[in-house]
Amino acid sequence: MDEKVGNFKIAGKSGNARAAELTTFHGKIETPIFMPVGTKATVKAMLPEELKEQIGAQIILGNTYHLHLRPGEDIIKKLGGLHKFMNWDGPILTDSGGFQVFSLSKLRKMSEEGVEFRSHIDGRKHFISPEKSMQIQMDLGSDIIMAFDECLEYPAEPSRIRESMALTHRWLKRSKEAMTRKESLLFGIVQGGLDYNLRMESMDQICSEDLPGFALGGFSVGEPIHLMHELVDKVAHKMPENKPRYLMGVGTPLDLILSIDAGIDMFDCVLPTRVARNGTLYTWQGKVSIKRAEYKEDPSPLDPECDCYTCTNYSKAYLRHTFLTGEIIASRLNTIHNLHFYLQVVKRARKAILDGTWEEYRDDCVRRFTQTR
Amino acid sequence: MDEKVGNFKIAGKSGNARAAELTTFHGKIETPIFMPVGTKATVKAMLPEELKEQIGAQIILGNTYHLHLRPGEDIIKKLGGLHKFMNWDGPILTDSGGFQVFSLSKLRKMSEEGVEFRSHIDGRKHFISPEKSMQIQMDLGSDIIMAFDECLEYPAEPSRIRESMALTHRWLKRSKEAMTRKESLLFGIVQGGLDYNLRMESMDQICSEDLPGFALGGFSVGEPIHLMHELVDKVAHKMPENKPRYLMGVGTPLDLILSIDAGIDMFDCVLPTRVARNGTLYTWQGKVSIKRAEYKEDPSPLDPECDCYTCTNYSKAYLRHTFLTGEIIASRLNTIHNLHFYLQVVKRARKAILDGTWEEYRDDCVRRFTQTR
Repeated sequence: MDEKVGNFKIAGKSGNARAAELTTFHGKIETPIFMPVGTKATVKAMLPEELKEQIGAQIILGNTYHLHLRPGEDIIKKLGGLHKFMNWDGPILTDSGGFQVFSLSKLRKMSEEGVEFRSHIDGRKHFISPEKSMQIQMDLGSDIIMAFDECLEYPAEPSRIRESMALTHRWLKRSKEAMTRKESLLFGIVQGGLDYNLRMESMDQICSEDLPGFALGGFSVGEPIHLMHELVDKVAHKMPENKPRYLMGVGTPLDLILSIDAGIDMFDCVLPTRVARNGTLYTWQGKVSIKRAEYKEDPSPLDPECDCYTCTNYSKAYLRHTFLTGEIIASRLNTIHNLHFYLQVVKRARKAILDGTWEEYRDDCVRRFTQTR
Repeated sequence: MDEKVGNFKIAGKSGNARAAELTTFHGKIETPIFMPVGTKATVKAMLPEELKEQIGAQIILGNTYHLHLRPGEDIIKKLGGLHKFMNWDGPILTDSGGFQVFSLSKLRKMSEEGVEFRSHIDGRKHFISPEKSMQIQMDLGSDIIMAFDECLEYPAEPSRIRESMALTHRWLKRSKEAMTRKESLLFGIVQGGLDYNLRMESMDQICSEDLPGFALGGFSVGEPIHLMHELVDKVAHKMPENKPRYLMGVGTPLDLILSIDAGIDMFDCVLPTRVARNGTLYTWQGKVSIKRAEYKEDPSPLDPECDCYTCTNYSKAYLRHTFLTGEIIASRLNTIHNLHFYLQVVKRARKAILDGTWEEYRDDCVRRFTQTR
C-alpha cells in the first residue's frame, strides 16, 4: 500500500458533486461509489469473483447484527476474518448493528450503556454497546467501521430527537475510544431526523470528532422521500469537505444521482439485490417488472443499452420464464443486472464529474430514471 | 463437423466397461458421461458457462414435459430453439415426457393413441402421443431425442409389463416415423421391469429398430436398488455393442461406477443437484451432510481431494453457515461441488478404462463411495 489508510483525495468537483479516492487497508475506492450489501457474509445470489469482474464492485457491506447472531464474530475471527471467510479480498464496510437492532429485533431495553434486545431468529437475549459493536467489527476485520448510534423511528418528537442525538454523540466518543484497530477506519454518523436545524446541530457534534469519514444516518425509516432529498440537499455539502460522506441505506438510482449532486460520495442499499429477486429491474429506460405478459415471447435483451452478462446473453422471454418458474438462475441474472446497473450509474457519474459533464449526465439520468416501462 | 452426427466410436474397453465418443450436431461427447439435468431450461443454480468451464459438462438434459407446459415449445422455437433460449451451445438430450406424465401429472387417460393428462401446475388438460413428443423435442432443437414410452409403476404384474412393452414398441415405431429432424438422434427405450426375461424380450423388440442409441428405462420408480444393479449387470452388455447405452434417471456415484462396469455409457439424474440444495454432498471420502454441528468452526475444505471452485475457495464452516441461513450461494457452491464430483467420477472412469486401470479404479470408488462421513 503506497498510501496511508484513510487517505481521501478529491480528484474533481462539479458544484457539490465530487469524484474522489479513499484508501483502505484492502485497497482504494473510487467515489462516488455504491456498495452492494452482503448481509450474512454473502451478497445474495452472487459470488465474490462476479462482484469484482462482472459488476465492478469495489467495496461491499457486511451486517454486524446478522453476523454477530450467525455464525458469530468469534467463529469468523478464528477462521481468519470476514474477508477470508467469504472469499472477498476487497474493502468491506460493516454497519454498527444499530439499525438492525431497532428495525428487526424485539423487546429492546435502551440504557446509557447500550441496547439489550432479543434475536429475531431465536428470541435469545443479546446486548450491544458501542464497545461491543467495535469489538464485533474489529473481530470481523472490517475496513470501515461504523460508530454505534441510536436510530430513531419516523416521525419522532424534536425533544426525543435531541436526546437521541446527544446519546449518539456520547456513544461515538465511546466507539472512538474502543476502536483500536489501526487497519480500520471509523466513520461517525450524523443523526437529527428530518429537521434541518437538528441535523446541523448533530453534524456540529459528530463532525467535531477527528475521524476519517462521516455518514448521514436515520433514513429509510418510512420518511417521505422528498423530505430526505430536501434535507440531504441542504446538509451534505456542509459535511467536512476533506472526508468521505456516506448516505446510509439509500436508495434508488434516482436517489443516488440527486444525492451525488448534493455532495454525497458513498451509498449502500439492499434495494437493487432485493427487488432483483422479486423480478424488478432498473434499466436506462426506466424500471421493468419482468413478469409482465408482454415479455412472454420477447427475444430482445432487458436493456439494449446495457452490456452486463444478463443483457448480453439472455432474452426478456428467458428472464420472464425463469422468474415465473422460480428458478435460482432468475435471481442470479436479475441481481447481476441490477448491481451492474447501479455500479454503472456511479461509475458514469464519476466520469462525468471528472469530464465536466456532470450536469448533463445528471439531467439525463433524472429524465431516464423517472420513466417506467 | 468432420464426423457424421450419430457416429459412435469405441476408444477402449475393460471387461464390459467402455470408453467411447458420440458425435452430435452440437459436438462430440466422451463417454462414460453424466448429463446434468436442466429441467426447465436451466440446470438449477448454475450458469451455462459454469457448467462448461467449472464442471466440465459435455451434454445436459432438458425435460420435454416441463418445457411443453412452461414456457411452451412454440415460444422456444420462435426464440431460436432451446440452445439459444438457455444460452447453452453444447449438446442437449431431451426426454420424451413419458416419465413425468406418469410421475407428476394427475388423471391420466391412456389409449393406444397416447396419454391425456392434467398439468401438475394448473390442472389444464394436455395430450401427448409419440408424434406430439417428437414434435415438441424437434421444436426444442434437441440433439438426442428420446422415444415416447410408457413408464410403469413398481411393482407391476408380468402380464401388465408385457402389454406395456408391446405398446412401447408400437410407440417407438411411431416415434421413429415422426422424428424427421436430421440434426437429431433418436434413442429407443428398453422397458420390461426388473424381470430378466421380460427385459430381454423388450430389448429384442426395441433394439431390432435401426437407431443411433438405446436406453434402459423404467428405473428410479421405487424398486430396490440391488435389483436394478443385478438386472443392469445382466442386460447392459447385451445391448447393441456399437451403439451408446444410456441408463435413464440413475443415480448415485456408486450406481454410476457399477453401471459403467456393466457396460453403460450415459447417465442423467437430478440427485447431485437436488441433494446439493438440501446440503448433502458427495466427496471422495463419502457422503457429507454440511449442516452437522462439527463443521461449525471447520476451516478445511469440504473435500481435500477435490479441486472444484467450492473446495478451492471456501471452508466447511462457510458452507455450513450459508446453508443454515438459507443463502443462494449455498445452493450454488454445493451444486458446483456435486456436479464437478460427478463429472470427475466419469472422467476418471474413462481415463481408467483407456489406461487399463479400470478394475483398480472401480474397486477404489466402491470402497470410497460406501463410506459416510
